[in-house]
Amino acid sequence: VGGIRAGIVGHTGYVGEELLACLGRHDLVDVVVLDVPSNREVRRPRPSAGTASKALQEARRALASPSRPDGLPRRPVDEVLHDDPLDAVLLATPPAVSLELAPRLVAAGTRVVDLSGAFRLREAGAFEAWYGMPHESPELLAEAVYGLPEFNRTQIAQARLVANPGCLATAAIVALRPLQRAGLVEGGSLVVCDAKSGVSGAGKESRGVTSFCSIADNFLVYGAMTHRHVPEILGACGLEEGRFLFASQLLPVRRGVLATVYLQLGAGRGQGDMEAAFAEAYGDEAFVEVYEAGAFPNLKSVVHTNCCRLGYTVSDPGRRALVVSCLDNLCKGGAGQAVQNLNVMFGFSETEGLQQR
Amino acid sequence: VGGIRAGIVGHTGYVGEELLACLGRHDLVDVVVLDVPSNREVRRPRPSAGTASKALQEARRALASPSRPDGLPRRPVDEVLHDDPLDAVLLATPPAVSLELAPRLVAAGTRVVDLSGAFRLREAGAFEAWYGMPHESPELLAEAVYGLPEFNRTQIAQARLVANPGCLATAAIVALRPLQRAGLVEGGSLVVCDAKSGVSGAGKESRGVTSFCSIADNFLVYGAMTHRHVPEILGACGLEEGRFLFASQLLPVRRGVLATVYLQLGAGRGQGDMEAAFAEAYGDEAFVEVYEAGAFPNLKSVVHTNCCRLGYTVSDPGRRALVVSCLDNLCKGGAGQAVQNLNVMFGFSETEGLQQR
Amino acid sequence: VGGIRAGIVGHTGYVGEELLACLGRHDLVDVVVLDVPSNREVRRPRPSAGTASKALQEARRALASPSRPDGLPRRPVDEVLHDDPLDAVLLATPPAVSLELAPRLVAAGTRVVDLSGAFRLREAGAFEAWYGMPHESPELLAEAVYGLPEFNRTQIAQARLVANPGCLATAAIVALRPLQRAGLVEGGSLVVCDAKSGVSGAGKESRGVTSFCSIADNFLVYGAMTHRHVPEILGACGLEEGRFLFASQLLPVRRGVLATVYLQLGAGRGQGDMEAAFAEAYGDEAFVEVYEAGAFPNLKSVVHTNCCRLGYTVSDPGRRALVVSCLDNLCKGGAGQAVQNLNVMFGFSETEGLQQR
Amino acid sequence: VGGIRAGIVGHTGYVGEELLACLGRHDLVDVVVLDVPSNREVRRPRPSAGTASKALQEARRALASPSRPDGLPRRPVDEVLHDDPLDAVLLATPPAVSLELAPRLVAAGTRVVDLSGAFRLREAGAFEAWYGMPHESPELLAEAVYGLPEFNRTQIAQARLVANPGCLATAAIVALRPLQRAGLVEGGSLVVCDAKSGVSGAGKESRGVTSFCSIADNFLVYGAMTHRHVPEILGACGLEEGRFLFASQLLPVRRGVLATVYLQLGAGRGQGDMEAAFAEAYGDEAFVEVYEAGAFPNLKSVVHTNCCRLGYTVSDPGRRALVVSCLDNLCKGGAGQAVQNLNVMFGFSETEGLQQR
Repeated sequence: VGGIRAGIVGHTGYVGEELLACLGRHDLVDVVVLDVPSNREVRRPRPSAGTASKALQEARRALASPSRPDGLPRRPVDEVLHDDPLDAVLLATPPAVSLELAPRLVAAGTRVVDLSGAFRLREAGAFEAWYGMPHESPELLAEAVYGLPEFNRTQIAQARLVANPGCLATAAIVALRPLQRAGLVEGGSLVVCDAKSGVSGAGKESRGVTSFCSIADNFLVYGAMTHRHVPEILGACGLEEGRFLFASQLLPVRRGVLATVYLQLGAGRGQGDMEAAFAEAYGDEAFVEVYEAGAFPNLKSVVHTNCCRLGYTVSDPGRRALVVSCLDNLCKGGAGQAVQNLNVMFGFSETEGLQQR
Repeated sequence: VGGIRAGIVGHTGYVGEELLACLGRHDLVDVVVLDVPSNREVRRPRPSAGTASKALQEARRALASPSRPDGLPRRPVDEVLHDDPLDAVLLATPPAVSLELAPRLVAAGTRVVDLSGAFRLREAGAFEAWYGMPHESPELLAEAVYGLPEFNRTQIAQARLVANPGCLATAAIVALRPLQRAGLVEGGSLVVCDAKSGVSGAGKESRGVTSFCSIADNFLVYGAMTHRHVPEILGACGLEEGRFLFASQLLPVRRGVLATVYLQLGAGRGQGDMEAAFAEAYGDEAFVEVYEAGAFPNLKSVVHTNCCRLGYTVSDPGRRALVVSCLDNLCKGGAGQAVQNLNVMFGFSETEGLQQR
Repeated sequence: VGGIRAGIVGHTGYVGEELLACLGRHDLVDVVVLDVPSNREVRRPRPSAGTASKALQEARRALASPSRPDGLPRRPVDEVLHDDPLDAVLLATPPAVSLELAPRLVAAGTRVVDLSGAFRLREAGAFEAWYGMPHESPELLAEAVYGLPEFNRTQIAQARLVANPGCLATAAIVALRPLQRAGLVEGGSLVVCDAKSGVSGAGKESRGVTSFCSIADNFLVYGAMTHRHVPEILGACGLEEGRFLFASQLLPVRRGVLATVYLQLGAGRGQGDMEAAFAEAYGDEAFVEVYEAGAFPNLKSVVHTNCCRLGYTVSDPGRRALVVSCLDNLCKGGAGQAVQNLNVMFGFSETEGLQQR
Repeated sequence: VGGIRAGIVGHTGYVGEELLACLGRHDLVDVVVLDVPSNREVRRPRPSAGTASKALQEARRALASPSRPDGLPRRPVDEVLHDDPLDAVLLATPPAVSLELAPRLVAAGTRVVDLSGAFRLREAGAFEAWYGMPHESPELLAEAVYGLPEFNRTQIAQARLVANPGCLATAAIVALRPLQRAGLVEGGSLVVCDAKSGVSGAGKESRGVTSFCSIADNFLVYGAMTHRHVPEILGACGLEEGRFLFASQLLPVRRGVLATVYLQLGAGRGQGDMEAAFAEAYGDEAFVEVYEAGAFPNLKSVVHTNCCRLGYTVSDPGRRALVVSCLDNLCKGGAGQAVQNLNVMFGFSETEGLQQR
């Protein structure tokens, strides 16, 4: 398998930095950093530094990103589109930017992995309801493949456009889908997903809510019942909305997602069935690890890796079950999964660029 | 109302320090610090400092408790028992110590607030099952009053022995009991409590699991399905074990508990019913504050206060409901609630000593 | 002594919130919250919430300040100036706002404690050099009293305008001034102050540099050799700039300042002289506590108190000395010291409103 | 260059885990985990888990080390010594264990990198004074090479025994030695090193002082004037003890050391001389990066890398200078530097195994 040329749009965000890190370790991808003029309209301009004190300026310099794309080629996206199409482009951009760029890239013959939510839902109406803007490419939306390689590997390998899943959605789906698909969950019973996320999931833009003084020593609910990742979970697991309860909460940590999923097993079902369902789903997977029943992974064990780790237990007596699922929101929940998708799309080894430790 | 003399056993733990702080602000209580010789057998001895480096010794000195009971009278508990009974004693001790001391104190005419789990359950069998030791005072166990003043104020006022609730139990019961008692929860449906706790809840004893390097940037499950606080919750809410799913998890913060409770409302029930149930339960309470529907308290807003704050929401459409309940495990979940109970027992203003801010 | 009416300008910042907390505990001050229209020009407007997601809006609401001045009278500062002068006003405002308001308040007969740097230096030239703007009230600048009650109590009691010291300056001066004034420091030798500050010292305004992801697990230098607090330290200690080395650094904590001061004692001087100098300076002080030689206070022991704590040691052999000084930047380093100054100005007990624990 | 077989003693500590991680990435080293029976006497046994609650046991399991040496060969050190000598052994052991093992390994023809302080000082008397125990191998102590490759590369390449430097010493020496050796520091003037360290520097053993509740939101001095790393710094820089002031302090972070060094330049010396001295010392070094004057590295930029980063500035006017030096205590300050030394000893590329990102 020969190498490819891949572009990154949005290299300055947390996910973009992680993409640069993964692809910097990748032996088969040459990276081009792409600049998007239209970004200017979508992104809010930074406040002028004119009034900042010298001390603050020094501090800003001291905090400059360690992953500046020094030495990487850098080109306007339009130039690349018209004159010299790349093999692939990874979009680490807001949905509105992805909506504009993805169709043009696909039309130019470039395969796309979109890390925004622009192409994750199957129908334009659902997209508009959850994202508050119309979807202008409903056909491409219908064609896009949901990028969870553990479940959609074959389609991803053929896809022109892969929609990289949300971080909370990945954690929840990896925990729940094998059980639901194997018919283990009691029909009609409630399914609860209590999700906790690190602060980098909120993005790099400066806001009071993500300031150190707001987050440190604190814990808070930021999504109750509704969250844009919910329709991804329902769709991937084949679950009715009316049975599903969800909350997303902010942990005082930089990276990581841990979701605790609660459900009731159907009559006659037990721990052995869960073990079998997980073994069937993930027995051969490099990036999902299932602990033995009764043991639980913690956040630190997955941070800076592309692994999703699962732990589970069943009540004694009874059929009440709990699954803990954790991952790094910037790796398996973002950039790492995007590179995993890229590897599948181009026939590379699935772990290429993803051996962080 | 005149003042009283109250003893504290176990003043060096986190809860004991908080008791000293509350009672230091209390105008009507004279505090006596009680030493218990039999403690020596129950508590594991500290490792000798003999091999510690000088640097470590300095660091230990630097971290010495800010709430040393300097200036407080200090006496052996046996002396107090026989010669000069106190009006009240607060036991911030392990269950085994409380089991031994509480009957002797009650027999001597001293009223007791026990902060351990020794007298929280109603039956000796249940105690033995959850705590792994026989209960030697089943009659006193049956007599003890569960110390949640918002629900049991009248009995607490008369009690000889008050069992101060567990911190996670307090958070869960305050969220759930009014809804369950008002018949709002769908019969037979699952009820989930996902509880998160700060590290001080694990006590002061030095262990690897509570070291800074284990906790910082981490989040982990330490109780899945089973926890000693579960039978308290089931009992206080009148809920069957088979419907209840519970996990307790460790937050990288020093203080605070936040419980997210998920449930389904019965047919025809909605947000207005929840509002009414909470208003009826807590409309006149000083230490429970209910947010308007859709708003949620965060951990920081309750830390260093004796408040339990509730937020809730209901799905649209549907009857899926979520309640967020948070408190400070050392205040309303521990020492503060104990002092609130003491205030009720002796007819003091319920907020005396509890205005931390 | 009768009570007074005092206004607060800038109640929404970290220092302003702490002022409200202190004065809320103060028995002799009625608080009026003052609004300043001209603030609008100085403060950068918050970005519109128009594009924020619903989840973010909920999070913002969840983080709403716990110290909203509900129930406090609230009036435009101009109205108060002209129609109904207050006894005192505390300015928790940027220097430019203090520069405009303080002269008008003083002219109206209101005594002022200014928490900005506008009146801390003695000469207009020095102010312009350090703050980058001309000083329009050089006479008032010359009249203003530097508000360190442990050293200037008599002048503060008479002052019309008190300049509340900077937080780092307070920590450094409390450590160094008694030694320097007693002639203990070797003439001409270097004096080093290595200062570490919590994040609330940078103010509440939202910036990338104070985001959780920038600060957590990090430590950084934000002022090297130069800092606006340096001329305060030099002036109060009578030290030449050419001997003084200073750095300010950002700790991943919310509150607190710890300064480590290094110096050489003069010939024949030793630990006993330091002990004597500190005892003379602080033997009767409520808010400075000196540890015995060789013991050191930590940050946690002073946070949420108005205490400055000192520890010190001398090399063996030799005359190399080290002093550790720590305080809470929002209390003794800000709002608490301002209330202490107010207490001195009006003849109240100096600890009134400052017993946080 | 062919590969080698290297043993690790002490693989379970923080430094040992990092050694396993580095050598796991190393293409030319086969790792053997060595067990030391005599360790039993030196290390304090863990408290029995017999009394731990089930919840705690689960938590302990959840926190199990992610770097268990599964799949690595594991042998008693005595067996390896007598029957099958390894090419090299890395000792991540307390000084007392290193003192016993290093002479035996060297005698068996195995080259040793010792990460303890047992062989860092040149004289047995100094060792006894600082470490409180006699040194039983004074000849080997005299022969041992101080393992800072940037200064001692030639000797390290030939050494039978390399003494890996202390983490604080490495940070201080990298900052100070080039200036001192180039004669830039004013003769006789004070030199100050204010060092801050993350908690993993204190080792993994469970103690109250390193518990989360003691460290979080705190900052404390643990070494004032004296620290075992001081004689390393004085020796490597050729500095008299009487001019050197030092403190070590504990940051609420897991990893990283930042040292702020203050000094006075000699007459006629300035920023250009510092730039030249650093360029000469580190111009060709892979693992020391010098920022341009006036810019400062932060802790986060070096954590999980083997880099030591320097920033510096000079006062204007004057000759007061400040150097900031930071590194990861477990990498360049420990395991990474040990592997760098191993690479030098065996003629491997110096960066082999050390490209963490």
